Amino acid sequence: MTPILPPGMVDIVDVAPRDGFQSIAEPIPTEEKQRCIQALIDAGVTRLEIGSFVSPRILPQMADTGDLVAAFANRPGIRFAALVPNQKGATIALDHGVRELVFVVSVSEAHNQNNVRRSVDDSLDELAAIAKRLREAGNSYLRLDLGTCFDCPFDGTIGWQQVDRVMTRAMDLCAGLDLEVGLCDTTGRATPYQVADHFTRLRERHDYEGLKWAFHGHDTYGMGVANALFAIHHGASAIDGSCAGLGGCPFAPGATGNTATEDLVYALNGGGVHTGIDLPRLLTAADRIAALPGGKIASHLRNVPRERVS
Amino acid sequence: MTPILPPGMVDIVDVAPRDGFQSIAEPIPTEEKQRCIQALIDAGVTRLEIGSFVSPRILPQMADTGDLVAAFANRPGIRFAALVPNQKGATIALDHGVRELVFVVSVSEAHNQNNVRRSVDDSLDELAAIAKRLREAGNSYLRLDLGTCFDCPFDGTIGWQQVDRVMTRAMDLCAGLDLEVGLCDTTGRATPYQVADHFTRLRERHDYEGLKWAFHGHDTYGMGVANALFAIHHGASAIDGSCAGLGGCPFAPGATGNTATEDLVYALNGGGVHTGIDLPRLLTAADRIAALPGGKIASHLRNVPRERVS
Repeated sequence: MTPILPPGMVDIVDVAPRDGFQSIAEPIPTEEKQRCIQALIDAGVTRLEIGSFVSPRILPQMADTGDLVAAFANRPGIRFAALVPNQKGATIALDHGVRELVFVVSVSEAHNQNNVRRSVDDSLDELAAIAKRLREAGNSYLRLDLGTCFDCPFDGTIGWQQVDRVMTRAMDLCAGLDLEVGLCDTTGRATPYQVADHFTRLRERHDYEGLKWAFHGHDTYGMGVANALFAIHHGASAIDGSCAGLGGCPFAPGATGNTATEDLVYALNGGGVHTGIDLPRLLTAADRIAALPGGKIASHLRNVPRERVS
Repeated sequence: MTPILPPGMVDIVDVAPRDGFQSIAEPIPTEEKQRCIQALIDAGVTRLEIGSFVSPRILPQMADTGDLVAAFANRPGIRFAALVPNQKGATIALDHGVRELVFVVSVSEAHNQNNVRRSVDDSLDELAAIAKRLREAGNSYLRLDLGTCFDCPFDGTIGWQQVDRVMTRAMDLCAGLDLEVGLCDTTGRATPYQVADHFTRLRERHDYEGLKWAFHGHDTYGMGVANALFAIHHGASAIDGSCAGLGGCPFAPGATGNTATEDLVYALNGGGVHTGIDLPRLLTAADRIAALPGGKIASHLRNVPRERVS
């Protein structure tokens, strides 16, 4: 079949080591995390969200992020990102040699308050400080995740205009950085047409050279793969997935984890979009991740007889 | 949001009363089937596959199809279809006053043999006889379902050329009929790009005025909604779904039921495509269908807290 998208156009970012692992209360041994991450790398995953430099008091599961960064330092061709909740976290991440920081602000005031106990304004102040720190460090990449871009568990449907307002302010603060903006469907409630509409409108409004777009979705409503494909067709060059669909969101009632990476890879490989990921090996990684005690998983491909996957 | 598809362009065909019910071994009381069908109608479903005029020896679950047809006769605005495995079934269906017959032939020889114990040639002979009967009866509509259009559980991937060969012969036999061709992803293994490719190629090859296209899919690999939307964007004007995702396929290992109607309706309603179906009422029907003993169900929407569905 003729490829509909040019090969290599889409990055798959596996967020299981951050978004997935943090959904498990009992700390996973660092060695087991390393084995899971290594299994993802062995499958051909080249971008990972490896952890979060958040206070270990708040999220003990993420306390070993620095150790993981050290363990996987200097892997050629592999990009590791780490979430930072504030400028303190950013400083620690940079001190650990992390090249790719991720910062999240929810478009919805109510969700931002519930998620990070701060107003959107305060989150944007932190963003300004992080951007400044990055410029000082000569490290220009930032992944800015805009949470609840389509739906908020408290406020309901979110229009693109509301995303635009927060994004416009954020873009100002991030001037000069090498920015990748992730539109996040935090609850999984977005529909493919809503995803297409948001990407279309926002890309028209923020048509800056070099600006990259990503999509972060959940399969809670069964829209996971469709939403990701519609995002790609409307400008996203990176898609987040969580291997085995590990995850959930404490402030998004009923949300399952991010769309399973294996479901996304199956859809893309089948369109001649070579993600560089080997599906059978990815399923080996998924089996390991699914075996972690206390994890909530959601994957279609893992339920198919293995000989029927290729 | 601006509708991406014109309102009313897509028919949702609920096949739960046929494809779903027949997956349950123990006969469901006819009155309970009627209540399920009525619940679907109450939700706004206007097209249903109500049953199958197959030998009750082979499929006892379908033995009451005639009674169901009689019970729902003359509902204005509601289209009822019934599957017929051969010309004898077609004669009985027409005698019962059924206006819409469905005939299935698998594109793959191996699957056709396993599914209906006949060669593709023999199935096409039956099709010729059914077409003749329809012309004699002055009843021109036929839904022709081409099974295993994308993947066969025995032969693997199916190219569009193989579909084209069977379809070309079928089109000849059906000349003069008001035909709706359903490309069926019997195993759920199709990818959205494969669906787009098949629809594009086959519509180029069979560009006849009045010919209608449908898509019948499963969510086994998590592609259900994406495949349906790609089919719509490439020419399908009808999509099959099974309420609650009830079903499975005895000759398609690991296959879950057809993509849940409620997942499809959620995706379409969210794009401004008014299917005419009320989602909360459809979920009421899904609850009733999911409660049938012995059924295998697969629905995303039913797992979402009800107040988070609209």
